[in-house]
Amino acid sequence: MATIKDIADKLGISVGTVSKGLNGASDISDTLRQTVLDTAVEMGYTTKKMKKEEHKKLCIFMENMDYESSNQFGYEIILGFRQAAYRDKWDVIVSPVNPAFQIEEKYDTFMLKNGYSGAFLVGFTLQDNWMAQLNTTTIPTVLFDNYIKKNPNVAYVGTDSFEGIDSAIEHLAALGHKRIAFLNGSPNSMVSDQRLQAYIDSLASHTLEYNEKLTAYSYYVVENAKYHVPVFLEEGATAILCSNDYLASGVIAECKLRGLRVPEDISVIGFDDLPVSTEIDPPLTTIRQDRIELGKCAYFAMNCLINHVSISRTMLRAQYIERSSTAPPKINKNML
Amino acid sequence: MATIKDIADKLGISVGTVSKGLNGASDISDTLRQTVLDTAVEMGYTTKKMKKEEHKKLCIFMENMDYESSNQFGYEIILGFRQAAYRDKWDVIVSPVNPAFQIEEKYDTFMLKNGYSGAFLVGFTLQDNWMAQLNTTTIPTVLFDNYIKKNPNVAYVGTDSFEGIDSAIEHLAALGHKRIAFLNGSPNSMVSDQRLQAYIDSLASHTLEYNEKLTAYSYYVVENAKYHVPVFLEEGATAILCSNDYLASGVIAECKLRGLRVPEDISVIGFDDLPVSTEIDPPLTTIRQDRIELGKCAYFAMNCLINHVSISRTMLRAQYIERSSTAPPKINKNML
Repeated sequence: MATIKDIADKLGISVGTVSKGLNGASDISDTLRQTVLDTAVEMGYTTKKMKKEEHKKLCIFMENMDYESSNQFGYEIILGFRQAAYRDKWDVIVSPVNPAFQIEEKYDTFMLKNGYSGAFLVGFTLQDNWMAQLNTTTIPTVLFDNYIKKNPNVAYVGTDSFEGIDSAIEHLAALGHKRIAFLNGSPNSMVSDQRLQAYIDSLASHTLEYNEKLTAYSYYVVENAKYHVPVFLEEGATAILCSNDYLASGVIAECKLRGLRVPEDISVIGFDDLPVSTEIDPPLTTIRQDRIELGKCAYFAMNCLINHVSISRTMLRAQYIERSSTAPPKINKNML
Repeated sequence: MATIKDIADKLGISVGTVSKGLNGASDISDTLRQTVLDTAVEMGYTTKKMKKEEHKKLCIFMENMDYESSNQFGYEIILGFRQAAYRDKWDVIVSPVNPAFQIEEKYDTFMLKNGYSGAFLVGFTLQDNWMAQLNTTTIPTVLFDNYIKKNPNVAYVGTDSFEGIDSAIEHLAALGHKRIAFLNGSPNSMVSDQRLQAYIDSLASHTLEYNEKLTAYSYYVVENAKYHVPVFLEEGATAILCSNDYLASGVIAECKLRGLRVPEDISVIGFDDLPVSTEIDPPLTTIRQDRIELGKCAYFAMNCLINHVSISRTMLRAQYIERSSTAPPKINKNML
């Protein structure tokens, strides 16, 4: 591992100046400090500070995901992570980030500067600037729903979409549904790809025909239900599987606007099992992602990485939760 | 959760007799004791003994895998698991099992009777009797290289075969190899299936043609190299990727018998990075499975399950280890 002297030699400055840069002393310029930090990161230098018991700090970076109140997806992910991490006496800081900040500040530099031993990244997309940097990061990093190939310092945590989607299709197929639509999230997302594949595989294993017109990307925008529901109905859908519970509530609202009853005329299934599932009418059948457990698993993965156990992926089981939004299909007819 | 009274009521015997059955008292018959235990398991009863700090016991069941000495695959898996479990004050018992024993004794019953809080199963195949029972077990159970669908009490631990195989193919393709043979392990094994798929996918991503005759199952029997190597050579193979290091050593021996030099005439890559890799001539390029880390990960997964975090799978990164058994291919000719 690189020493302070190595960094000093490389930059042609004194050991004392490097030390000031690393410790955030105020009598060197920001530019020099940044250079010292960037070089330290580049050379794989780790401050003792990051290893000291009394400075044990982890960061959770949140992007594109609400987490402030308990009815939002991110809330319990953070809670679960904290609950598990606190047992091992870690301090956990939650830090919202946006694309602009990621361009301004390098990931490894930010981590080193702030004395974080590792980070949990939630809600990032493959287009985010930091994601590309994760191919080579040396910082223990856990990603929710994203995967980085071949870097032993990065782990992936998520829910098994295949089992989740399959449970829903199995249930609908058993009720007699043959035309099951799938309203997915955003395209170019790892999880959307997985779920679409799971949907296609599960249809096949239940000898149901795949019809591309029965699938669409909603971008998780609830209002988009009004564009997709009519197409699904036109194609004869008797059930609509949605990629989250809010989308499902939008689909139910749209069906009602069209004079259709849920579940008598059309069945709807959500994803996540957020608190909203029990509040809408009818109470929503859904596929549960246990956010508390996901948070805990993320910490377990983090703990592995910090202990040099190069975990690649950690997945949780999805749980099928039956409520009142599904029923056998009505005799097939054009329902528009 | 069921109580001792529930078990007594169901069997029509006294609470005292149930208690004797659960505690292994000597003054009731083995048959009655077995019935009490079977019923307790069936009703989801868990003894307090299993939860007491001073009786914290986990079991590692070993089948079809050598583990007694440090040059064998199972040795470090056990060591890693123990190292991690001991930190949390678990006692870990290693128990070899065979198919006959699995037919004689139910898995859940054996666990309850022996006061184990969970088990790590290594070397089992999908044909083993206990594997079918794992679909419904309520005991925290971690499987090495095997997967049970939809049971939240069972987790899978393994190495990412896809990244491992891909690293090897990438390296060989970069050297200029176009006909890369793959000597797999046993058929009807989850890992063999994964590795074959990884091989096919990786060939495709390097725009190399897949030829079924360049693949074979060795059943991990080193002597079988003599049957497969001639076929591979006949098909023009310039490199042979093997599913473990002992197989690779068998392949190298067979090539030498035929007057071929490794790596000048043919390249050979192993899998696992067992101690033997550095002892053979030439030292073997291989794909490392870190057994100590696998054992530790298995314990992390176990710890999750015991804490009711329903981990589905935990995978480690494979690491490509370059030694001296690969080189650019010779100009193609029939090498027999």
